[in-house]
Amino acid sequence: MASVDVGIGLLGYGTVGSAVNRLLSESGDEIERATGHRLRVVRALVRDPDKERPFPTGDGVLTTDFAALRDDPAVDVVAEVMGGLNPAGDYVRELLRAGKPVVSANKQLIARDGAELFAAASASGVQLRFEASVCAAIPVVKVLRESLVVSNVHRVLGIVNGTTNFMLSRMERGGSYAEALAEAQALGYAEADPTDDVSGADAAAKMAILATVAFGSRVRFEDVDCRGIEEIEPAHVAAAAELGMVVRLVGIASLVGDAVDVRVQPALVDRRHPLAAVDGAFNAVMIQGDAIREITLEGPGAGGIETASAVVADLVSVVGTSGTGFLQNDACWRELPLLPSSEWRSPFYVHLEVSDRPGVLAHAASRLAAHEVSVAQLVQRLENGSATLELVLHRAPYGEVAAALREIAAFPEVLRPPFSLPVISERSV
Amino acid sequence: MASVDVGIGLLGYGTVGSAVNRLLSESGDEIERATGHRLRVVRALVRDPDKERPFPTGDGVLTTDFAALRDDPAVDVVAEVMGGLNPAGDYVRELLRAGKPVVSANKQLIARDGAELFAAASASGVQLRFEASVCAAIPVVKVLRESLVVSNVHRVLGIVNGTTNFMLSRMERGGSYAEALAEAQALGYAEADPTDDVSGADAAAKMAILATVAFGSRVRFEDVDCRGIEEIEPAHVAAAAELGMVVRLVGIASLVGDAVDVRVQPALVDRRHPLAAVDGAFNAVMIQGDAIREITLEGPGAGGIETASAVVADLVSVVGTSGTGFLQNDACWRELPLLPSSEWRSPFYVHLEVSDRPGVLAHAASRLAAHEVSVAQLVQRLENGSATLELVLHRAPYGEVAAALREIAAFPEVLRPPFSLPVISERSV
Repeated sequence: MASVDVGIGLLGYGTVGSAVNRLLSESGDEIERATGHRLRVVRALVRDPDKERPFPTGDGVLTTDFAALRDDPAVDVVAEVMGGLNPAGDYVRELLRAGKPVVSANKQLIARDGAELFAAASASGVQLRFEASVCAAIPVVKVLRESLVVSNVHRVLGIVNGTTNFMLSRMERGGSYAEALAEAQALGYAEADPTDDVSGADAAAKMAILATVAFGSRVRFEDVDCRGIEEIEPAHVAAAAELGMVVRLVGIASLVGDAVDVRVQPALVDRRHPLAAVDGAFNAVMIQGDAIREITLEGPGAGGIETASAVVADLVSVVGTSGTGFLQNDACWRELPLLPSSEWRSPFYVHLEVSDRPGVLAHAASRLAAHEVSVAQLVQRLENGSATLELVLHRAPYGEVAAALREIAAFPEVLRPPFSLPVISERSV
Repeated sequence: MASVDVGIGLLGYGTVGSAVNRLLSESGDEIERATGHRLRVVRALVRDPDKERPFPTGDGVLTTDFAALRDDPAVDVVAEVMGGLNPAGDYVRELLRAGKPVVSANKQLIARDGAELFAAASASGVQLRFEASVCAAIPVVKVLRESLVVSNVHRVLGIVNGTTNFMLSRMERGGSYAEALAEAQALGYAEADPTDDVSGADAAAKMAILATVAFGSRVRFEDVDCRGIEEIEPAHVAAAAELGMVVRLVGIASLVGDAVDVRVQPALVDRRHPLAAVDGAFNAVMIQGDAIREITLEGPGAGGIETASAVVADLVSVVGTSGTGFLQNDACWRELPLLPSSEWRSPFYVHLEVSDRPGVLAHAASRLAAHEVSVAQLVQRLENGSATLELVLHRAPYGEVAAALREIAAFPEVLRPPFSLPVISERSV
């Protein structure tokens, strides 16, 4: 079969980079059938060329000199699998300016510098793809861009961080936050410094990218309203269980009228909701739109080979669609404002600890009513002279709920600041 | 913006056809952003041009003359949304021969005449796409072909018929097969003649197509080992519940060594398995492969607008990739043999009704042991002198299990023919 060789450059040759090289080597026939081309790694930028590698490159492929990769005419497409904002960002910018298409697995880079990078790609007329930057092998970017092109997607819900999903699932079976974290670290799901995962920053970068693609308007990392899971206690998990729910770190991107709202925060998810069933370290993304109602994609959201699989799929798409103009532009085509956080509407769960005196409940209910927030469900529990109230509130603007809770917090009978989380129960909104 | 008009022909203008026209009309901007083209319905073949339509066409678009559509130079791409094997098959063949790319939503046609149709497309150098033929808006064909190109997919599990999924879910909450069917019909999930759904034929066509794409080897409708849900009784559903499982009509396509096995049959699915959670009339497809472990796609598997959304996505892909050669060939590139049914391996559930005499259990167990089939779980129940045995057997070749059950059926103590179903419990195999 007549076939043209396509030279691939890799920025980075760690776990993902070597897995990309292995997949390209082992699946050359599959790729040739799909694209008519053979993809071959011809250059890989590394810091230490003498380090032992899980899948070695050919002779002369490893280099420590970025310019040698950038200026090598044998390099047709580059995959950025080094991570970090710098120097990865500078390299990608330079490559795009030099007219090389780039595939990136770097969520922080795409979520923070996307506007500038896509502008550079556009100016050079080359592609920048980023499937691997979100949820590894789950092809959510391709599905949003290609399959749901006419679906008017208005909401994306995601369990997009496997570490926290594992930890919260673990806490359900008993155990503290610290124990769950230690187990996640022992299993390799969490880093020694777990901040990026537990603070929600990792999920926020992914949701920024997904919202950008889903709504066609740039959402930056900084635009995501982000709350981590550090404050989740066994008591919250237990209270959720009594309500038939589980606590999960959920990303929620919504198109509300002409405004965009993107948030990452712990939420109470109804056990019957598909997101509640997402297993341990897996990820899932639920996409809701006019023509499709709701499509959910679930799978491993991390891992070297899984990420490499998405990188290779992007390389195949770049090579396969080169020269057509098909979906090679920036996914953004409009500028929508961010919804003020106070206007974001959701049902909420509220946990109150009060001293057991007559009238407290009536007082709290009247503050909620004053803000037109109504109560869907209430459980009161007495313990040694104090009471806990678990409330589920009907869908209401976050600003009204927060204002009512501030007023309630000011009661002398309220022993701790009220604790609230959004609730996800209905399938489609 | 400079844009080229692309003329679309429709074979059929019923619910799906008119929804395609509506989506193309309302989402012209989105499509133009993705492809650089405006897609417009210029001809639609119908039987009765005077019938009232949910979304009317422009003047002169409806025609009763196939040749007028085929020979119209303004028709660049055709969507077949009429259904049925004939004349749809003849029309698609003629269009491909005439050099028109075709998008089809017709699972029976693709599953039965795929080989011939793809040969015709290939000979003319035009595309034949069929995303809408399987699970409506769920983009499983695109994901298999484009995103998982290097994944070595070895197993596809699917809940691909919403009618039977609804009925079996309904039976779990009490109610007979007849009641569940009546309710599915009342809600519009089942046809007046439900044979296609309850016999498994609808699911078999979809699994044939999915297996063909997943394994790159043609699987025809006739190649699918197919068993319907007509024989499922409330007692089976209740027995499953006691084992922590549900009964579901499941499609299972496996690559076993170099052979292919594709089957549709009722199975016991562990409640914790993602396929057990698929809600009512929804569909789900779980894809297992080397690089991805397991990816599950879930969504509405039927419906006019949902199917139209997939048709439009295919039209967009045809227009977007035209002239590149990217993935436009037949998904088949090899010819793998079918696995003899007796060699297909699975855990099994067996229901036995025996007269309550000493030694029956020992006798049954010895027949299973003689075929090297071991028992994982056993529940015995006594009732008025007879006993029911519910067994879960460890993974074993179907031929050995069937042989043992034939021997057991010959015991004078066995009151009814043994009833068996495969069990799906592990997530990945």
